[in-house]
Amino acid sequence: MAKIAVLAGDGIGPEIIAEGLKVLKAVAPQHGQDLEFTEALVGGAAYDATGHPLPPETLELVQNSDAIFFGAVGGPKYDVIPDPNMRPERGALLPLRKKLGLYANLRPCILYSALSSACPLRADLVEGGFDILVVRELTGGLYFGQPKSWEGDNAIDTCLYSREEITRILHVAFKAAQKRPNKRVVSVDKANVLETSRLWRDTATKVAAEYPDVELSHQLVDATAMDLVRRPQSFDVIVTENLFGDILSDEAAQLTGSLGMLPSASLGQGTFGLYEPSHGSAPDIAGTGKANPLATILSAALLLRYSLGAEAAALQIEKAVEIVLNAGHRTGDIAETPDTKIVTCTEMGDLVVAAL
Amino acid sequence: MAKIAVLAGDGIGPEIIAEGLKVLKAVAPQHGQDLEFTEALVGGAAYDATGHPLPPETLELVQNSDAIFFGAVGGPKYDVIPDPNMRPERGALLPLRKKLGLYANLRPCILYSALSSACPLRADLVEGGFDILVVRELTGGLYFGQPKSWEGDNAIDTCLYSREEITRILHVAFKAAQKRPNKRVVSVDKANVLETSRLWRDTATKVAAEYPDVELSHQLVDATAMDLVRRPQSFDVIVTENLFGDILSDEAAQLTGSLGMLPSASLGQGTFGLYEPSHGSAPDIAGTGKANPLATILSAALLLRYSLGAEAAALQIEKAVEIVLNAGHRTGDIAETPDTKIVTCTEMGDLVVAAL
Ligand SMILES: CC(C)[C@H](C(=O)O)[C@@H](O)C(=O)O
Ligand SMILES: CC(C)[C@H](C(=O)O)[C@@H](O)C(=O)O
Repeated sequence: MAKIAVLAGDGIGPEIIAEGLKVLKAVAPQHGQDLEFTEALVGGAAYDATGHPLPPETLELVQNSDAIFFGAVGGPKYDVIPDPNMRPERGALLPLRKKLGLYANLRPCILYSALSSACPLRADLVEGGFDILVVRELTGGLYFGQPKSWEGDNAIDTCLYSREEITRILHVAFKAAQKRPNKRVVSVDKANVLETSRLWRDTATKVAAEYPDVELSHQLVDATAMDLVRRPQSFDVIVTENLFGDILSDEAAQLTGSLGMLPSASLGQGTFGLYEPSHGSAPDIAGTGKANPLATILSAALLLRYSLGAEAAALQIEKAVEIVLNAGHRTGDIAETPDTKIVTCTEMGDLVVAAL
Repeated sequence: MAKIAVLAGDGIGPEIIAEGLKVLKAVAPQHGQDLEFTEALVGGAAYDATGHPLPPETLELVQNSDAIFFGAVGGPKYDVIPDPNMRPERGALLPLRKKLGLYANLRPCILYSALSSACPLRADLVEGGFDILVVRELTGGLYFGQPKSWEGDNAIDTCLYSREEITRILHVAFKAAQKRPNKRVVSVDKANVLETSRLWRDTATKVAAEYPDVELSHQLVDATAMDLVRRPQSFDVIVTENLFGDILSDEAAQLTGSLGMLPSASLGQGTFGLYEPSHGSAPDIAGTGKANPLATILSAALLLRYSLGAEAAALQIEKAVEIVLNAGHRTGDIAETPDTKIVTCTEMGDLVVAAL
């Protein structure tokens, strides 16, 4: 039996997680997967209830689980908590990543052909779609380095990387590329300015030698921000450090026009992982039924694939989502025209279950 | 008499600077501007000739000048110089910015209506064009903070900001916004993760109090990378720290589809400034006549505006560029269709002079 910690969080978190669970519960038995779900508080919801965004009970639960199914955390209400380390991001999300060693964040940015009209780019630049996998280092760099402080009129953040940290994320990227038709990795850095980037580039070149079937190129982060817009189809796997990955994965996600469709997986050594939609908690639409649960449902597929090795179950979900989209069902965020008939979050979950 | 240091640099630098000078020399006398131009070596060209990318003679010249007219530096040949501090970026460009106190980098990202078909975004997202001014802090942050080193298998970069550094760049942004019709400033940071960003946000809020006619909002860098793609027309002035500014200004520039059109100004206290195109040295097309000199010509306009206070002369150049574009003249990078008749770099310079 696999233990799944369910951390719904804030905003639309509970609604989208409910649909993800519906799908997981429908699929798992068909593939002999016996899943036990245990819910726990996280983020603003946990802060409100217990005074801490990551209460000890929650941490204990996840440490005794096989995977975390995560909704979203944060919201304007919690941005004003005086101690930043009690806010959902720095008090829950970042500690979860760091304490659980989830160093590899995988963000597939796929332009679905059924949704190509939602893409903000000119049609001729994206004909035939694109499929970019952003592999982001998630436990190093400027996010966690010490010293990190603001005292009086001066503040400091520190960007640290070791060869070991870079090596292991590069292996994730190369292994992922090996399984893809194009087998290309672009390693993104700012090696003309940063020492951590020079170490990154040197390491990438060395790791690449172990993957002769994969083509490696290096690109500066500013040039990559441009090329994503200009020729998204030229990318296959992008691997980069934490902060660059934050920015570039969001840019790439937006280029699909369907952020509400994009799942993510955060992995460490072994099969443990945290699975969450790439979008945030969208407090403005919480409770309205407008949320798109597909990113969460597709995150459930990644959970089955990476933490439980249930590839067929993952594919079944991904197939069902495609069927639902091809049949023309849309939540508001991915509606093509003002006349498109809109389904609610719950209806979308039901549609996917029906299409399984 | 105003002294202009001319640093053409590498790649297409000399070709584009030649056209910029042609235009400056034609315009200046009409506005009573007496300019003295002195050329000096910089970048790879200086390294080849003297062993240093910023020779003492060049530094002395610029320190005794009223403005620097800069081409571009760098190229693959110089990326492999073993000591990174002898490469054009870290040996010349960054020291010039730092030593001359050029803390305010202004990058206008304008979608010209004559060039709207070059824009990579869907036409309905950019109808009527857009006009974004990116104000980038240029002498602080991760670019210059110490410690900064790579030793063995560990590397470190340090991001430092003081309230004073942030305050002065915010003033530049607010003053620029006051002169624009929409009077809106978006201050971009990563305040949910970085301490330097928390100081940045706090400072921005305080400086804003002095500009009641300007509307300030704060946005996270990842959300900004998305919104630039999704709704570029919603931006007016963007102000941000050095590294975020590097990435976002390039993204915004690419959204115009005409990087070859975009000038930049780097300013300090007083009227001294460095003026250069936003694009790089493009070694692949150097010497072929394919370079677009318009970004450099428009940088000459900024030189007249900011360092010499010659607003009318600046407008005359900007007007001439528009006339030339409206008449359909194009270099290859901004050609609409494969049939568009292409002019060379020199021809484009001549056309602008003729249109003055
Ligand atoms: C909420 C924030 C701390 C987080 C990050 O920057 O990593 C988010 O933007 C993300 O990408 O998961
Ligand atoms: C060449 C490089 C050091 C520079 C920067 O990062 O500032 C360039 O990208 C720029 O934007 O002027």
